[in-house]
Amino acid sequence: MRPLITLTTDFGPGSSYVAQIKGVLLSRCRELDVIDLTHAIPPQDIRRAALFLADVTPRFPPGTLHLAVVDPGVGTSRRLLYAEIGPARYLAPDNGLLSLLLQRQPATLLITLEDPAYWLAQPSSTFHGRDIIAPVAAHLAQGLAPHKLGPPITDPTLLPWPTVKHQTDVVHGEVLLCDSFGNAITNLTRADLHNFGPPANLTIQIANQTIRGLTTTYGLAQAGQLIALFDSQDRLEIAQVNGSAADQLRITPGQVVAVFHPPTD
Amino acid sequence: MRPLITLTTDFGPGSSYVAQIKGVLLSRCRELDVIDLTHAIPPQDIRRAALFLADVTPRFPPGTLHLAVVDPGVGTSRRLLYAEIGPARYLAPDNGLLSLLLQRQPATLLITLEDPAYWLAQPSSTFHGRDIIAPVAAHLAQGLAPHKLGPPITDPTLLPWPTVKHQTDVVHGEVLLCDSFGNAITNLTRADLHNFGPPANLTIQIANQTIRGLTTTYGLAQAGQLIALFDSQDRLEIAQVNGSAADQLRITPGQVVAVFHPPTD
Amino acid sequence: MRPLITLTTDFGPGSSYVAQIKGVLLSRCRELDVIDLTHAIPPQDIRRAALFLADVTPRFPPGTLHLAVVDPGVGTSRRLLYAEIGPARYLAPDNGLLSLLLQRQPATLLITLEDPAYWLAQPSSTFHGRDIIAPVAAHLAQGLAPHKLGPPITDPTLLPWPTVKHQTDVVHGEVLLCDSFGNAITNLTRADLHNFGPPANLTIQIANQTIRGLTTTYGLAQAGQLIALFDSQDRLEIAQVNGSAADQLRITPGQVVAVFHPPTD
Repeated sequence: MRPLITLTTDFGPGSSYVAQIKGVLLSRCRELDVIDLTHAIPPQDIRRAALFLADVTPRFPPGTLHLAVVDPGVGTSRRLLYAEIGPARYLAPDNGLLSLLLQRQPATLLITLEDPAYWLAQPSSTFHGRDIIAPVAAHLAQGLAPHKLGPPITDPTLLPWPTVKHQTDVVHGEVLLCDSFGNAITNLTRADLHNFGPPANLTIQIANQTIRGLTTTYGLAQAGQLIALFDSQDRLEIAQVNGSAADQLRITPGQVVAVFHPPTD
Repeated sequence: MRPLITLTTDFGPGSSYVAQIKGVLLSRCRELDVIDLTHAIPPQDIRRAALFLADVTPRFPPGTLHLAVVDPGVGTSRRLLYAEIGPARYLAPDNGLLSLLLQRQPATLLITLEDPAYWLAQPSSTFHGRDIIAPVAAHLAQGLAPHKLGPPITDPTLLPWPTVKHQTDVVHGEVLLCDSFGNAITNLTRADLHNFGPPANLTIQIANQTIRGLTTTYGLAQAGQLIALFDSQDRLEIAQVNGSAADQLRITPGQVVAVFHPPTD
Repeated sequence: MRPLITLTTDFGPGSSYVAQIKGVLLSRCRELDVIDLTHAIPPQDIRRAALFLADVTPRFPPGTLHLAVVDPGVGTSRRLLYAEIGPARYLAPDNGLLSLLLQRQPATLLITLEDPAYWLAQPSSTFHGRDIIAPVAAHLAQGLAPHKLGPPITDPTLLPWPTVKHQTDVVHGEVLLCDSFGNAITNLTRADLHNFGPPANLTIQIANQTIRGLTTTYGLAQAGQLIALFDSQDRLEIAQVNGSAADQLRITPGQVVAVFHPPTD
C-alpha cells in the first residue's frame, strides 16, 4: 500500500510553492499518494488552518501523514513539529496549527525537527515546507522512526480559542469562519445548546438580526430567508437560503452571536 | 487496478468540504485514485455543473465513478441517485445534474439511495456528499452491487435546457457559460448551422455587436478583435483575441445570440 | 512503478479543460499518477508559466513528463514540442514556455509533434492540450519512443528575458512576479549581488521606496515593515511583513528595482 500524505497550505492556487513541495516529496519517495486538502487558507491565517485540520484530518485513514504549511514565522526560532494525535500524524510549524486537535486529545508523540540529516542540504530561510517538512515527510513515508528527527517536546504552542459564554438564558459565541457559500459558522455547538430545549424554540441574534428557531436544512426555507441551523460538524451556522449570509449581514470571523431561551420579546 | 473516482463540486477551493469527502473515501477504500475535476462550479449552479459533467465525463475510462455534489436541496425529500449512463457511473443528487447526459442517452440503470447500511451512521442534514455519497462510492469501489443501494427509478429530474430556434435565415441560441478566458460558449453547435453554408459566410449578432464570418482559431485574428468560432466541443463561441469577450461585451449566461445567413448588413 | 505526469495550465479552477485533459490521459493509460502543478497561470502569460516550470520541474523525479498548456497560438502554425532537458521531459507548445529551462541547459532532444497517429482523431483547432498533447503523453507513458512523434528540431522559440544590468555601484533588475502573499520576486539573484559585500549593507530602491539592508526572513522584522531578502530560489524579493508589498507599493511585473553599494543616502 502506498503511503498517504496530505497537503494543507496558504500558498494559493497560482504559486509554485505547492508544486515544489510535491516535487520534493515525489523525488524522494516515488510511490506516494499525495492528496491536496486545500491551498486556499487565507495567507498566514493560522486559526483558519487549525480549524480546517481539526475538521478534516480525523476523517482520514489511520497513519495518514498530514503536512500543514502556514508559517509566518518561517526561519525564526519557532520550532517545526512532528506530532502523533490519535491515529493521525502531522508535520507543521509549532505556531498553533495543531491547537484545536490538541485541545481534543493530547499528542501521544511530539518531536521537534532538529536533525538536518533528513532535510534538504542548505535549507532556505523562507521555505521550510519544501526544505525541511517535505524531505522529512518522505523519510517518514519510507519508514524512518520519528525519534530520529529530533528530541521530544511537551510544550506545543496552543492558541487561545474563542470561548463559549454560558448564562442562564443566553449563550454567547462567535463566528469562526464564513464558508464559500457565505454561511457563517460559529463556535457554538449542539452540545452548548443542549439544555435550552428544542432547537425550534431558540432565538438567535447576530449583526442586529433576529432569527427565531433553528431549521434542519437549507431547502426547507424560502429563497432569500435568513436561517440558523446546526451544520455538518454540529456547529451553529447562520445561512441565507440561495444566498450569502456573510455578504448580506457583512459578517466576518469574530462577529458575536447570541442564542436565547426562551425566545425574547 | 485501483478504482477511479472523480469529484465535481461547488465547494470552492478553500472549503474543508472537499477534503472531508476525500477523507471518507480513502478511509473506507484506501487504494483509490481520486481525481479532482473541479470544485469551482458557481455555488448551487446545477446547470453549469450539468454542462461540465456532460463535457468531461465521457472522456474518462469506462467504469469511472463520478461524484457530483452541487446540492441546494440537501436534506429535503430530493432523492440521491446512482446512475449508469453509457460506460460511466455517477452518484449525484436528483436535481438535474445528469440532465444533459440523460438527454444524449438514457441511463441503463438508475437507483435511488435508500439503504442507510451503506451510509455514515447518523448522516447530517446538510452534507450528504460526505455522509451518504462518499461512503456509498467507497462501497461501490469495493465491488458492491448497485441494486443493494436502493430501488430502481425511472423518472430522474430533467432540467429544461435552452433550445435552439431555427428559422429560415437565422438561428437563435444563447450563451451557456463564459470560461476562464472570457470566451462566451453558446448552445449553438456546428450541426445547428450545417445548412447555412460555409462558416466564413455567416453573420453573428450578440450584445449589439456584429461579427462577420467564423474563424478557426484565436491566433489568426488581431489582438483585441472580436471573433466567432466553433470551440473544441463544436459549440459556437464568441471570443476576444488576447482579451475577454465576456468583459468587453458584458455577456453573462442567457445572453441571446443570433446567426444569420446570408450575411445581413 | 506508475508513470508520473504533471499538469501546468492557465485554464483556471472552474474550467472543464483541465478535467478533459485528465480524462484523455487516464482513458488511454489507466495507471498514471497525474499531479496538478497549477492551473492558475494568468491567462496566456507565457513568461509566468516559463518561470513556474523552471522553478518547479527540476524538483521532480527523473523521467517525469511535464505537460504545459499555455497556448494563445493554438491552431496556428506554431509547433508543439516534446523536449528532454536534463532528466525531465516536457510536452508544450513552442512559444517560449521552455525558455528559462533551455537558457540553463540545452535540450538533449527536441521533437516537433507531427504524426497524427498519436493524436485524437480530428483534433480541434482550439484545444491541442486535449487533442494532441494528452494522447501523446499517454503514448509516451506507455513507452512510445519519442522519435516516432515527429522530426527533431534545433530552433526552439526562446523568449527574451529581462536582463540584469551591472554597473560599478548599482545593479538594476526588475520584478518577475508577485506571489500569492504579495511578495515581489525580482530577477536579481544572490550571485548577481555577490561582489557587493554583506547583504546587510545593501540599499534597495523600488517604487520610490528605499530599503536598507537585506534581512534573512519575514519574522525578524516588525509587522507592516517593508523588507528585502533572498527568497527560496535565491532571488531578491521585496516583502511586507504580514502584508502585501505588491498592494502597498502597487508593484506589478516589470517594475524596476535597483540595488546600491555602498548605501546611498
